Amino acid sequence: MSGENLIHQKNIKLNMSRRIRRTPFTKKVEECGVSDFTVVNHMLLPKGFKNSVEEDYWHLRKEVQVWDVSCQRQVQISGPDAEKLVQKMTPRSIKKMETGKCFYIPIIDETAGMINDPVLLKLDDDMFWISIADSDILLWAKGIALGSGYNVEIVEPDVYPLAIQGPKSEDLLVSIFGKDIKKLKFFNFKVFDFLGTKQIIARSGYSKQDGFEIYFKGFETHFNEIELGEKLWDIVWDYGQKFNISPGCPNLIDRIEAGLMSYGNDFTRENNPLECNLEKYCKQEDDHDFIGKHALRKIQSEGIKQQMRGIIFDGEPCKPIGVPLPVYSKNNKKIGQIASGIYSPRIKKNIGLSMINRDFWDLGNEVFINTLNGKNRKGIITSLPFPD
Amino acid sequence: MSGENLIHQKNIKLNMSRRIRRTPFTKKVEECGVSDFTVVNHMLLPKGFKNSVEEDYWHLRKEVQVWDVSCQRQVQISGPDAEKLVQKMTPRSIKKMETGKCFYIPIIDETAGMINDPVLLKLDDDMFWISIADSDILLWAKGIALGSGYNVEIVEPDVYPLAIQGPKSEDLLVSIFGKDIKKLKFFNFKVFDFLGTKQIIARSGYSKQDGFEIYFKGFETHFNEIELGEKLWDIVWDYGQKFNISPGCPNLIDRIEAGLMSYGNDFTRENNPLECNLEKYCKQEDDHDFIGKHALRKIQSEGIKQQMRGIIFDGEPCKPIGVPLPVYSKNNKKIGQIASGIYSPRIKKNIGLSMINRDFWDLGNEVFINTLNGKNRKGIITSLPFPD
Repeated sequence: MSGENLIHQKNIKLNMSRRIRRTPFTKKVEECGVSDFTVVNHMLLPKGFKNSVEEDYWHLRKEVQVWDVSCQRQVQISGPDAEKLVQKMTPRSIKKMETGKCFYIPIIDETAGMINDPVLLKLDDDMFWISIADSDILLWAKGIALGSGYNVEIVEPDVYPLAIQGPKSEDLLVSIFGKDIKKLKFFNFKVFDFLGTKQIIARSGYSKQDGFEIYFKGFETHFNEIELGEKLWDIVWDYGQKFNISPGCPNLIDRIEAGLMSYGNDFTRENNPLECNLEKYCKQEDDHDFIGKHALRKIQSEGIKQQMRGIIFDGEPCKPIGVPLPVYSKNNKKIGQIASGIYSPRIKKNIGLSMINRDFWDLGNEVFINTLNGKNRKGIITSLPFPD
Repeated sequence: MSGENLIHQKNIKLNMSRRIRRTPFTKKVEECGVSDFTVVNHMLLPKGFKNSVEEDYWHLRKEVQVWDVSCQRQVQISGPDAEKLVQKMTPRSIKKMETGKCFYIPIIDETAGMINDPVLLKLDDDMFWISIADSDILLWAKGIALGSGYNVEIVEPDVYPLAIQGPKSEDLLVSIFGKDIKKLKFFNFKVFDFLGTKQIIARSGYSKQDGFEIYFKGFETHFNEIELGEKLWDIVWDYGQKFNISPGCPNLIDRIEAGLMSYGNDFTRENNPLECNLEKYCKQEDDHDFIGKHALRKIQSEGIKQQMRGIIFDGEPCKPIGVPLPVYSKNNKKIGQIASGIYSPRIKKNIGLSMINRDFWDLGNEVFINTLNGKNRKGIITSLPFPD
């Protein structure tokens, strides 16, 4: 991919140590020629392979990819007070949540600041997994439970999600796990057999395409002398050949187009869920008790000062942005910053996500993006997800 | 430095994004030719510069270095219940702790598993900083406080430690901050003036040498159009010229020789403080209430199954170990693993840290280190810190 490197996506070496945890699939990912990693939840997340982000994008939209997203660590909450604790942790009501469902939930602190935006899985009436973005929700949940005297057990289970994403993901998984895969609806999961083990598979994933996440359980267990995780990868890989499978990872172009935010990048503890367009998970008629309720209701009555928007902007195709690009109004006021941005070969413009000051957040408004090399580029505020 | 690269310290690229936070000093560190980074507390920590670990080691022992350890994030706990909450978080009694002191404290969960090993600073009777290793203690502390209904405020303040380490660090800081630097005793701190701002400086640091940590406050504030953090770096750098200053970072050889452990590397939540040789901070006569007390007292009465030891081992000089090396007994039983290991040019052998099974932990015992390339190397159990 050609284009100006906007800054700080340099060739920076990552020093390895046990603290930056490897996954059941890291060896396979290395064999596939991983080009770079990031660190999420003290664990490696691949960020690219031999192809460019753009090549991977087109492939993801047409074929199928296998992603090592083990860094989506699970916080397992079980016991008599499990539901009570989980409900305490989010403004979204889980009263009607059924076993086998996945819920996207904002988790906020006492100031209504976002501290994670995980996917919640209900395994049973007294057993939940929280599949987390990059913050130690295990410590948060344990702290609340210990302080409150809840009767729960909270652990990080031996579970490492492997995502299968792309339009051919259903056919691929049917060939491995059988026809019941087809019955899985979006954000539902079921248990499937795999070489004598039970594995949870959900129809979900961090892309705009169809896809599944195998919540692989069994790191360091073996199947005939081969590690079970590597065996799973191999089987997915072998069956995937006829579907033109390739190794992949969350794709920046696809994710931004879909308006899928990244915790720590597009929003932080400084932001509340309303700023993140998560109003629908903060319904005022849900009157359960949760941490941050008072602060959130106050913000809801007073209104927010900024909100997440899409920006389409001009100029040379951008490579993935490494440090945020400040966004200015016509009269040179800083009104936001693009933390996730890249060139979309489909829209044929650069695209980015940014919180935008409310005086400037109307769709169609003109803004200016400072590319940190002295140049300003024209941009337009747009809705999320980006138009198809 | 010559020697066999034991595995997985390959040229792995780190993908940059806002989530991997830059510090007030990152730009300066880049200008100094940083060679690689790791990620601690969602923030960049430099891991090397132009010189080898060995060259940096000799320099650290003779001269002075400046380290960007901003990733030692502070958890600021203030308010009427601040002391109560802090005391609840550690087995170490803080009853007699005075303002201006630093305490190294284990933080454990309800199972007595280590969740951090920070340095606690008492700023006032109702104001503490916890200077953390790599886990989100902010969430842990907030969770406990919210669950317990403590009257505290918990924030991550605008503070970024800059370490000045090495035998000439005192002379350097005297030249910048005046003679009162000399009065600072080990693990004490005082407030010093810097260009009209107040900065806390402690005599402390993650090395065996004399040193200081400037708890720099004021990211993104400016002094005459220059960012204050960069100004601080520049002044340290300029005054440091006559002391032969160089850029540095926690030095693996020095740290292992000193027996300084690294959370996530040498121990994890799977380990209790007794295994980590932290008995002196777990006194049974300290009868205050703390999380994990019941589990810890049980372990204290039953005895531990493994404990941290030093290992001196043969063979070609090791480069920094990237993935743990398993340690075996003579009869081929796995009894530990070395997560931190390297060649010591002073001891003229390889050295490492490992939890060792109690049947084999006696000093002088012979062990075998599997270097993951099929070779076993002889080693000897030794005390910590390593003999001078």
